[in-house]
Amino acid sequence: MNKLSIIKIGGNIIDNPTELAQFLTDFSKIEGNKILVHGGGKSATKMAQSIGLVPQMIDGRRITDAPMLDVVVMIYAGEINKNVVAQLQAHNTNAIGFSGADGNLIQSTKRNHPTIDYGFVGDVQKVNTPLLETLLNSGITPVFCAITHDGQGQLLNTNADTIASELAIATSEVFDVTLTYCFEKAGVLTDVEDENSVIQQINSALYSKLKEEGAIHSGMIPKLDNCFNSLSKGVQKIRIGHHRMLQNTNAICTTIEL
Amino acid sequence: MNKLSIIKIGGNIIDNPTELAQFLTDFSKIEGNKILVHGGGKSATKMAQSIGLVPQMIDGRRITDAPMLDVVVMIYAGEINKNVVAQLQAHNTNAIGFSGADGNLIQSTKRNHPTIDYGFVGDVQKVNTPLLETLLNSGITPVFCAITHDGQGQLLNTNADTIASELAIATSEVFDVTLTYCFEKAGVLTDVEDENSVIQQINSALYSKLKEEGAIHSGMIPKLDNCFNSLSKGVQKIRIGHHRMLQNTNAICTTIEL
Repeated sequence: MNKLSIIKIGGNIIDNPTELAQFLTDFSKIEGNKILVHGGGKSATKMAQSIGLVPQMIDGRRITDAPMLDVVVMIYAGEINKNVVAQLQAHNTNAIGFSGADGNLIQSTKRNHPTIDYGFVGDVQKVNTPLLETLLNSGITPVFCAITHDGQGQLLNTNADTIASELAIATSEVFDVTLTYCFEKAGVLTDVEDENSVIQQINSALYSKLKEEGAIHSGMIPKLDNCFNSLSKGVQKIRIGHHRMLQNTNAICTTIEL
Repeated sequence: MNKLSIIKIGGNIIDNPTELAQFLTDFSKIEGNKILVHGGGKSATKMAQSIGLVPQMIDGRRITDAPMLDVVVMIYAGEINKNVVAQLQAHNTNAIGFSGADGNLIQSTKRNHPTIDYGFVGDVQKVNTPLLETLLNSGITPVFCAITHDGQGQLLNTNADTIASELAIATSEVFDVTLTYCFEKAGVLTDVEDENSVIQQINSALYSKLKEEGAIHSGMIPKLDNCFNSLSKGVQKIRIGHHRMLQNTNAICTTIEL
């Protein structure tokens, strides 16, 4: 099978133009098939505030009411996505920016939670793998923002980590997929204050042990749960670390396997 | 050659959700290859005002400074484009939304005017016809917003009528292209107050005569100049009229030929 690299970047890169430019330079040098998934960063919150919306959060998740959905669509699918695509084009990477509505690439359903109304938040149902394959085989580099649709005309705000993992799972049917999550740390740390405490290899047994000991906790748990779920569904390899690992293949990061 | 319909809609449809829904229903019923180009409407101006920007105009054209470019990218490529795509998907039209940066589909150069600094405004240089052909042959319906790029990382605000005509000219090398401009009137009128004064057929001789007589003036002149330019460069047929002509093929509109 042909190789496919899926890279997810978050707000720490999106919010910093210098880091973003460096990342996009490095990303454009990755050979072969590749997909970029980007999160949102702070500009949606800033825009919401500047037009008088009050962002609402429950359990660290944004509640997406209709005006906030408009804002995230503008910022994620408009401003961020198109600027990233234009910069990749300048590096001769033939990028196309997508929401899940485009080409029906990622269809989701509005979250139906028994007690919390998350608003216009979508849980991924289906990836249009044949179209993605056609695009990749035509030399296109898809760039996904974290917006999907329900197939009935409604756009939905969707977690970018989840989009990356769902794309990885779906494309692993036809590609040998490496999924890389870039974030602000060098990898999964046993001591969040110490960048030298990177766990370089983690499997499900070690993960259970570290969770029990409390060495892995809070925000890292849903991220790693997502990773093990993706590996169990066919993704070949997952890496978590700072985006400098794209530039320097010897840079330390966390590699996750079953 | 296969047929291709290129339809351009402006602010009067974009700003009215009921009209837009009706238009998209009718557009989705057009058989065969089709491309939609949409303008911006009032929401970019409203957004600019709500974040404290003062829109600047010279000769009826928006001056696009950097903060205004951010706004038009957000609104045109984000909010409008993705909502249109999601609605077309609901009609089983497999739409993908594009700026000119996506797939390097429309490259432009920043306008260099001897006396007026238009800001981040792009004049179209080149359409990526082979990629458009690949997309159309894969059953995709491209939906273009009026944003292009310069190939060096800069997004540029571009006139939507011009985008429609440049796409029509470029694709007329490989398709039999009909270009349709939908606007608020039934067609080109000899009396702007009288919807019954539609000129149903216009050629270059009649156009010259009507311009001399003053029956065609102001905003209609650049639109028609654009049309005759497109026809001279290979576009088969151009229509101007109200979008109800998509629904009712007997509806009166203006058909333009050389």
